[in-house]
Amino acid sequence: MISPKSPGSVGLPNPNAAGLAYRAVRAESEALAAPLTPEDCALQSMPDASPVKWHLAHTTWFFETFVLAELDAHYTSFDPGFRVLFNSYYNSVGEQYPRPARGLLSRPSLGEVLAYRGHVDRAMQAVLAAGLPAESAGIVELGLHHEQQHQELLLTDVKHLFAQNPRLPVYRPTWPLTAVQPAAREWIAYAGGLESFGHRDRAATALELAAFAFDNEGPQHQAFLAPFLLASHPVTNGDFIAFIADGGYRRPDLWLALGWDAVQREGWSAPLYWRQEDKRWQTFTLHGAADLDPHAPVTHVSFFEADAYARWAEARLPTEYEWELAARDLPRAGNFVESGALHPLATRERGMPGLPQQMYGDVWEWTQSAYLPYPGFQPGPGAIGEYNGKFMASQMVLRGGSCVTPQAHIRATYRNFFPLAARWQFSGLRLARDAP
Amino acid sequence: MISPKSPGSVGLPNPNAAGLAYRAVRAESEALAAPLTPEDCALQSMPDASPVKWHLAHTTWFFETFVLAELDAHYTSFDPGFRVLFNSYYNSVGEQYPRPARGLLSRPSLGEVLAYRGHVDRAMQAVLAAGLPAESAGIVELGLHHEQQHQELLLTDVKHLFAQNPRLPVYRPTWPLTAVQPAAREWIAYAGGLESFGHRDRAATALELAAFAFDNEGPQHQAFLAPFLLASHPVTNGDFIAFIADGGYRRPDLWLALGWDAVQREGWSAPLYWRQEDKRWQTFTLHGAADLDPHAPVTHVSFFEADAYARWAEARLPTEYEWELAARDLPRAGNFVESGALHPLATRERGMPGLPQQMYGDVWEWTQSAYLPYPGFQPGPGAIGEYNGKFMASQMVLRGGSCVTPQAHIRATYRNFFPLAARWQFSGLRLARDAP
Amino acid sequence: MISPKSPGSVGLPNPNAAGLAYRAVRAESEALAAPLTPEDCALQSMPDASPVKWHLAHTTWFFETFVLAELDAHYTSFDPGFRVLFNSYYNSVGEQYPRPARGLLSRPSLGEVLAYRGHVDRAMQAVLAAGLPAESAGIVELGLHHEQQHQELLLTDVKHLFAQNPRLPVYRPTWPLTAVQPAAREWIAYAGGLESFGHRDRAATALELAAFAFDNEGPQHQAFLAPFLLASHPVTNGDFIAFIADGGYRRPDLWLALGWDAVQREGWSAPLYWRQEDKRWQTFTLHGAADLDPHAPVTHVSFFEADAYARWAEARLPTEYEWELAARDLPRAGNFVESGALHPLATRERGMPGLPQQMYGDVWEWTQSAYLPYPGFQPGPGAIGEYNGKFMASQMVLRGGSCVTPQAHIRATYRNFFPLAARWQFSGLRLARDAP
Amino acid sequence: MISPKSPGSVGLPNPNAAGLAYRAVRAESEALAAPLTPEDCALQSMPDASPVKWHLAHTTWFFETFVLAELDAHYTSFDPGFRVLFNSYYNSVGEQYPRPARGLLSRPSLGEVLAYRGHVDRAMQAVLAAGLPAESAGIVELGLHHEQQHQELLLTDVKHLFAQNPRLPVYRPTWPLTAVQPAAREWIAYAGGLESFGHRDRAATALELAAFAFDNEGPQHQAFLAPFLLASHPVTNGDFIAFIADGGYRRPDLWLALGWDAVQREGWSAPLYWRQEDKRWQTFTLHGAADLDPHAPVTHVSFFEADAYARWAEARLPTEYEWELAARDLPRAGNFVESGALHPLATRERGMPGLPQQMYGDVWEWTQSAYLPYPGFQPGPGAIGEYNGKFMASQMVLRGGSCVTPQAHIRATYRNFFPLAARWQFSGLRLARDAP
Repeated sequence: MISPKSPGSVGLPNPNAAGLAYRAVRAESEALAAPLTPEDCALQSMPDASPVKWHLAHTTWFFETFVLAELDAHYTSFDPGFRVLFNSYYNSVGEQYPRPARGLLSRPSLGEVLAYRGHVDRAMQAVLAAGLPAESAGIVELGLHHEQQHQELLLTDVKHLFAQNPRLPVYRPTWPLTAVQPAAREWIAYAGGLESFGHRDRAATALELAAFAFDNEGPQHQAFLAPFLLASHPVTNGDFIAFIADGGYRRPDLWLALGWDAVQREGWSAPLYWRQEDKRWQTFTLHGAADLDPHAPVTHVSFFEADAYARWAEARLPTEYEWELAARDLPRAGNFVESGALHPLATRERGMPGLPQQMYGDVWEWTQSAYLPYPGFQPGPGAIGEYNGKFMASQMVLRGGSCVTPQAHIRATYRNFFPLAARWQFSGLRLARDAP
Repeated sequence: MISPKSPGSVGLPNPNAAGLAYRAVRAESEALAAPLTPEDCALQSMPDASPVKWHLAHTTWFFETFVLAELDAHYTSFDPGFRVLFNSYYNSVGEQYPRPARGLLSRPSLGEVLAYRGHVDRAMQAVLAAGLPAESAGIVELGLHHEQQHQELLLTDVKHLFAQNPRLPVYRPTWPLTAVQPAAREWIAYAGGLESFGHRDRAATALELAAFAFDNEGPQHQAFLAPFLLASHPVTNGDFIAFIADGGYRRPDLWLALGWDAVQREGWSAPLYWRQEDKRWQTFTLHGAADLDPHAPVTHVSFFEADAYARWAEARLPTEYEWELAARDLPRAGNFVESGALHPLATRERGMPGLPQQMYGDVWEWTQSAYLPYPGFQPGPGAIGEYNGKFMASQMVLRGGSCVTPQAHIRATYRNFFPLAARWQFSGLRLARDAP
Repeated sequence: MISPKSPGSVGLPNPNAAGLAYRAVRAESEALAAPLTPEDCALQSMPDASPVKWHLAHTTWFFETFVLAELDAHYTSFDPGFRVLFNSYYNSVGEQYPRPARGLLSRPSLGEVLAYRGHVDRAMQAVLAAGLPAESAGIVELGLHHEQQHQELLLTDVKHLFAQNPRLPVYRPTWPLTAVQPAAREWIAYAGGLESFGHRDRAATALELAAFAFDNEGPQHQAFLAPFLLASHPVTNGDFIAFIADGGYRRPDLWLALGWDAVQREGWSAPLYWRQEDKRWQTFTLHGAADLDPHAPVTHVSFFEADAYARWAEARLPTEYEWELAARDLPRAGNFVESGALHPLATRERGMPGLPQQMYGDVWEWTQSAYLPYPGFQPGPGAIGEYNGKFMASQMVLRGGSCVTPQAHIRATYRNFFPLAARWQFSGLRLARDAP
Repeated sequence: MISPKSPGSVGLPNPNAAGLAYRAVRAESEALAAPLTPEDCALQSMPDASPVKWHLAHTTWFFETFVLAELDAHYTSFDPGFRVLFNSYYNSVGEQYPRPARGLLSRPSLGEVLAYRGHVDRAMQAVLAAGLPAESAGIVELGLHHEQQHQELLLTDVKHLFAQNPRLPVYRPTWPLTAVQPAAREWIAYAGGLESFGHRDRAATALELAAFAFDNEGPQHQAFLAPFLLASHPVTNGDFIAFIADGGYRRPDLWLALGWDAVQREGWSAPLYWRQEDKRWQTFTLHGAADLDPHAPVTHVSFFEADAYARWAEARLPTEYEWELAARDLPRAGNFVESGALHPLATRERGMPGLPQQMYGDVWEWTQSAYLPYPGFQPGPGAIGEYNGKFMASQMVLRGGSCVTPQAHIRATYRNFFPLAARWQFSGLRLARDAP
C-alpha cells in the first residue's frame, strides 16, 4: 500500500517508506494523547479499559520486546522493569502486571513514558534505516497495526473515563457537524452461493504493499451462503428510540436469555452514555454532552442489544460472511478517525444506488458470527501466536471499523471481536434478512 | 417411530401408540428416581443443577401447562401455585421461582410430586385416548423429548450432588463391566464438499414416525466443508493422563485465554470427579468411587479442557458439520442409558473398518462450533419458541449423546449445547485434523 | 438446680438426676423435629442456618467426641466419618465439613441420624449411670446446654427455610392466642452505681444445681453505672409500624453508617418476614402467615434496626449491664418454648408496679454492648475453649431469651450474641435512656 | 492553646491566633503533597483509601460548606459541582460522589484543586480576621482537626498506593535514622479502681486554648478498673518475627474466628508491606524498601493480628480505659510527623523508670475496646453530628497517635477507630495483663 502521501497507512516496502510509516503511526498516538493531562492519562475506569499512559507504553514495549531485543542481544532496554509492567497478555514473554491494576501506576509518569517512546523510536529508526530481515519486518508491520488498534482503544477508554466524571470533561471541544436528513433505508439483495472469504495466504506477500492482514483473517476458504437481504444503512438513533419507546428493554421475548440477564443485572434501559432529560435524549461524546442526532447510526450497544433490536425489527444481524460479501468491492471510504468527528454521523451524500452505505467507518457492526478460527487457521509461532487465536471463545465478530479507527487500518476481511455484553466501543448494527 | 416393542422411544402416530409412548417415557423418569430417598430428591448442589424432585415436577408442568390447560379451559390444576413454582424459564407463561433456590423447597414433598404426576398422567391419558389436534400432538411429542432431556439431567445432577458428600453415596451398586483393550486409534479421512446439514423441514412431518427434531436442528441447509480427518475413537482417560503428566494444566500456551482464567480461578488440575490417591487415579461414578479405566473415553471435561487437549495433541475439535457428516450414516447404537452402565466404556468390539466408533453414546463430544442459529432458523410461536432459540449465545455444540441419554432420544442432527466451562455433563471429545 | 420434676432443666447432681436430665433434653430435640419431614430436615436456606438433621447430629457428635471418646479409648463410634462431617468449628478436633454446604448432604438420612442419636444415647446412659469424673460431668452439663441452644436454632432455621417457600408451610398448625391490650409503657428508674456483674466463679460450683453458666458469663466483676431509665415493656409491632410510617427506613440520619449500607444493600423496608398486603401488615410465623398483633413485641429486627428505632424514639438501647441489673432479681418467667406459642406475645397480665415486664422470654433484647471478654476472662482449655471466646468480635450482646428458648436455659447473666445485621433470630429490643 | 511558635497546633482564642493556626494547618497539607506528582495525587489504590487530591479538596470543602456557606448566604462557591464531588459521607449535606470511584476523577486537576484551596483560604482569612460567632469558631477548630486527620490519611494512602507499584516509589528519599538497642521490656503495674475517663464537657470550654476534643471523647464519666499490668514498650518487629517463626499465622487456636477467616481469605502470613527475601525481612516505607529494624515497634497489623499476637504471648490487649489511665499524666512527646521519620522508631533514650515509653507517636495502639458511645454521648446537631457517632459499629479503638500524626492533634482521651481487619494505618500494639 501506502505511498508517503498517505501518512496514516503502514507497510514496509523499503527502508525509507518503512521509516516514514513507523514515524507516522507513532506520531499519531502521541497526537491523540496531546489534549490530555498527565492525570487523564493515568486513570483506569474499569478492568476492560486501560490508562492512556499504558497504551502509549505497551505499544512501545511491543517494538522493544519483539523487534529490538530480538535483533540485538546487547540492546539496552530503557527500564528492565517495563518488560513485566507493560506486557499485556503474552505468557510466552513472562509475567504480567495485573490488568485491573493498571490504573494504580502513578510512576512511571507520562513524561517518562514519552521518554521511553523516544528511546525506542530512536533505536527503531536506526534498525529500520539499516534494513530489516524479513521476519522482523513482518513484526514491525504487525506492531504498527497493533498500535493503530490501541489508538482506537485509547479514545474509547478516555471516553469511558470521562463519562464517569460528573464534570463531563471534553476531549475535543469542537462539534463541527450539523444534522442532515439521510436517504431512506432500503433492502439490498444478494444471491449468495459458494464464495471465497478471508484474506489470501500471507506467507507469500508479507512485504507487499497493502497486503497486511492479521492471522485471524485467514486462510482464505470457501463457504456457502443462501440468498439474503442487507440494509442499505446502519440502524439509527431514531430507530433505536422507537425500540425503547416500544418497551424494547422491558420485553424478555426480544432478548437472548443471557442478554435478558444482563438487562436485569446491569439495569440497561438505553445504549451506554444515553441520558434522558426532560424527555430529550442526550448522549456523551468526545466533544462533551450532546443531543442525539436521530439520523446518525446508533452506537455503544452490546451484541445483546443489537440482537434484541433486530428481533424487534423482524430482521436479524448479518453473518460475517454476508457482511464481507457485501463490503469487499466497496471503496474503503467513510467517517474514520482522520475526519476528526470522533462520533458516528448521518450519511451526508447519496450513495451509489443498490449499494450499501457506511459499511466502513462510523460504527463497528455486530454480526451474528461467533469469533472462531477459520478452517485451517494456525496461529503464528511463539509469542506472536498469542495475538489473536487465544481469544476465540465467547466473543462475537464486528466488521467495518468506526469513527475512531484509522482509515488505513481497516479492510473487508478485518475481524474485530468483543464479548457479547461490551458496550464501550463504537459498536452499532446493520440489519439483514433471509431472501424471501 | 417406535413400535410398542421399543418402549423407550417416542412418536405419536395414533392414539394407541401415543398413549404407549407417553406411559413409557413417564415411567422411565420415575424408574430413574426410584433408587433415591426423598432427601436425595430435594437437594440442589449448584445453581446449574436442579433437585430430582424438581425435574419430576417440571416435566409434568410442561404437559399441564402446554397441553392440558390449552386444550381445556376448565382443566383443574393439581395446585395453582405450581404454575410459578415449576416454570423453568418461560417468560411467556409468567413469573418463575428463582432457579438457584430450587433446593429450598422441602414442600411439596416427593410424595406430593408423584401424586402431581399421577394427576396429570391420568388427564393426559384421557386426552391422548380421545385423539389430539395436530398442534397439541406436536407439543406432546416435544414434551416427551423434553422429559428425556431431563432424565439425563436428573442423573448428572444426582451425580454432582452425591460427589459433594464425603460419604460418596452410590446410585446404582453394581459395576458390571470389566476393562478391555480397545482397538488402536486411527484417522479416518473425509472429502468434505458442499453438503446438506440439519433436519429437514418439520412442518410436513410433525406426526410421522421417527421424524421428530427440535427446532434448532433445522432448517436443512447447505454448507461447504474442506477435507478433514476424524479420529476413530474418542480421547481416553489414558490419553488425558498423559496430557496431565505433560503439564497440560500448567501451560498457558495450550489454553484459550478464558480457559486459562478458568484453570486459575477454579483450580482445575484434572477432569471433574478425578482424584489421585497414592499415584492412582480414581473417579466418582454413579456406582461410587472407581479406578479410572485408561481405555474408556474421558468424560466430565469442559470445552476449555477439550480444546486444550486437542491443541496439545496437535489436532483440533471437529466442527459440528464434520461430526454430522461422519455420523449420519452410522447406526444409532452405543452405550446409552438403557445399558445400565451409566458410565462411558471402552470399545468392546471391533467396529467396521474405516468407520468411526462410539460416535453415539458414551460421551457427548464437544465440537468447535458455537451454538448459533442455522441459516433461516425461526423459533416456534409463543412459549415453545423459548425452548431453544434464546440460549444461542456463549455456548458450544456437543453431539452424539452419552451413557445417560435414552437411545431413542438421539440422532445425527441433534445439537446439545453447554457453556464453555461446564463439566458436570458426560462430556468428552474426539479429535479432528485438516486433511494434509 | 432442677429437681426431676422440672424435666426441661439440666444439672448433674447425681447419676440418677443426670440421666433424667440427659434424657429430657435429648428427647426435646427429637420432639421439636417430629412435625418435620425428612426433606424439611435436610435443607439449608442460607449459610447462617443449618439443616435440622445437622442440628440433631452435631449435638450428638458433641457428646460422642467430648465425652464418650474421651472416657473410653475403645469406644466404637457410630460412623468414623461423622467426626469431620458434624464438627461445627472445633479446629482442635480437626477438619470440618464446610458450613455453607451442610445442605448438600442427603446422606446420612434422617433415619440414620436418629439411629446415631440412639447409639450415642445408649452409651451415654451407661456412663451416666456408672457415674462420671468431675471433668466429664462438666462437659455433659455443657453439652446439654449446648443442645438447648441448638433447639432454639433448629426452630429459627426451620422458620427461615419455610419462609423461602411460596407455599408458606406451617410448622405447628394451632394459633392458640388472641390479641390483648397490654398495659401502657412506663419508664422505670435505676440508680446505677458500682455493682457486680456476671456469673460468680464456676470453678467451685460446677456440679451444684442451677449453677451452670457458660465461660463467657464470667468472671464476676465490678462495673460502674450511671443512673438510667428502662422501658417497662419491649418495643411493639405497633411502635415499629409508626417508625416505618415516619420514613424510618428512608432516613439515613437515623442509622449507623454500616446500618444504612445494609438497608441499601439488602433492600430492607420492614423487619424480616413482614409483608404488606392491601395496607395490612402480615408476618410469617411457625404457625404460617398471620396478621401482625400491634401489641406484641416486634421481632426479627437486626441490631441496626433496633439502634435506628431507638434513635428515632429519642432513646437508646440499654447496655448489657443495665439490662442485667434490672433483670437479676426478677423471676425467670415468661413466654418460652414450653408455652407452645413459638411467637412473641403481648403482655397478658398486669406486672408488678415499678418492675419491667417480659424481660425473660418473648424476644432476645439487643443491647448496645459489644460482645467482648469480661475482665479476667479465660476460655477453658482445649477444644471446649473454642466454644465462646473466639467469637468475641463484631457481634453485639442480646439478653433475656425468646419464645423459642427453653426456660431452664436462660438466666440473668446469659450473654447471647449475633452479628449486627442478623435478623432470623427472635430478636427485639427494649428502650433505655440516661436519667434526666 | 498554641502560641505562634507552635505552628502545628490549633485553637482559636482570638482573630490573630486563629488566622495563624488556620494558615499553619492548611500549609502543612500542601507541604505533605509537595513531593508528589499530579499523577500520584489522582490515584486510588483501594476503596478504603482516597486520592491525595481528594484529601486536599475535601478538607477545603469542609470549610466552604460548614463555615463560608453558612455565614454568608451570598458566598460564591468556587465550583457548585464540588458540593457533591467532595462530600465524603454527610447525608445531611446531600448526595455524595461514590467513594470507590474517587480515583476516576482526572478533572479537576491538581492545579484546580490547589486553586480551590486558594479561593477558600482567602475567604476564610477574611472571615477569621473579622472575628467569628462562637458556633462558627467551633466549626473552624473542628475543621482544622479534621484536616490533620486527613494529613495522616494522605500519607497512609500514598504509602498504600506506592506499595502497589513494582517500582516501589520513594515519597521521601532520606532515611535519617540508625537502629539502636532499646531498653528491655518491663511490666508496669496499675492499681485500677473507680476513675474518670474521657474529655470533660466541651460546652464551657470550646474557645479555650488546648481544650479541643472530638464529641466521641466525651462526656467525661466514671468507670471501674481492676488492677492490671501494662508493657513498658510496644511489641517490636523482632517480637513479631518470633510469632511468625512459631507458626503464628498457621495456628487457628491463636485467632478469633473472624480473624482466622481473614488469614485464610486474604492469605496473610506477615504484617502488611513485609516481604521476605533470602530469609531477610524487608518492609516498604515512605522512604522506599528497607530492612526491618527488629527493635522498632511492629506496625501495619490488623486488630486480628494484634489480638492473636497477644494470645500467643500469654497476654492481652489493654482496654482503652487502661491505656488512658496510663497515658494521661505523660508528656505528649514522641515520634510524630514533625520528626520527619515517617516510620516507627526504636526507643532512643532511657525513659523514666516505672513509666511506659512510646505511648504517644510511633504507632497507634490497638485496644480490646469496641468503638462505642460513652455513657451519655450525644452527637452534635445537624451535619456535624455525622462526624463520629454513626461509625460506632464493628470497629475497635486505637490510642496514642503514630509517626504520621501531627503532634498537636493527639491527646490522652483521643479515640481513633478502624475496622478489625484494617492494616494500612500505622497500627501496632502494646501488651497488657491482669494483675496477678
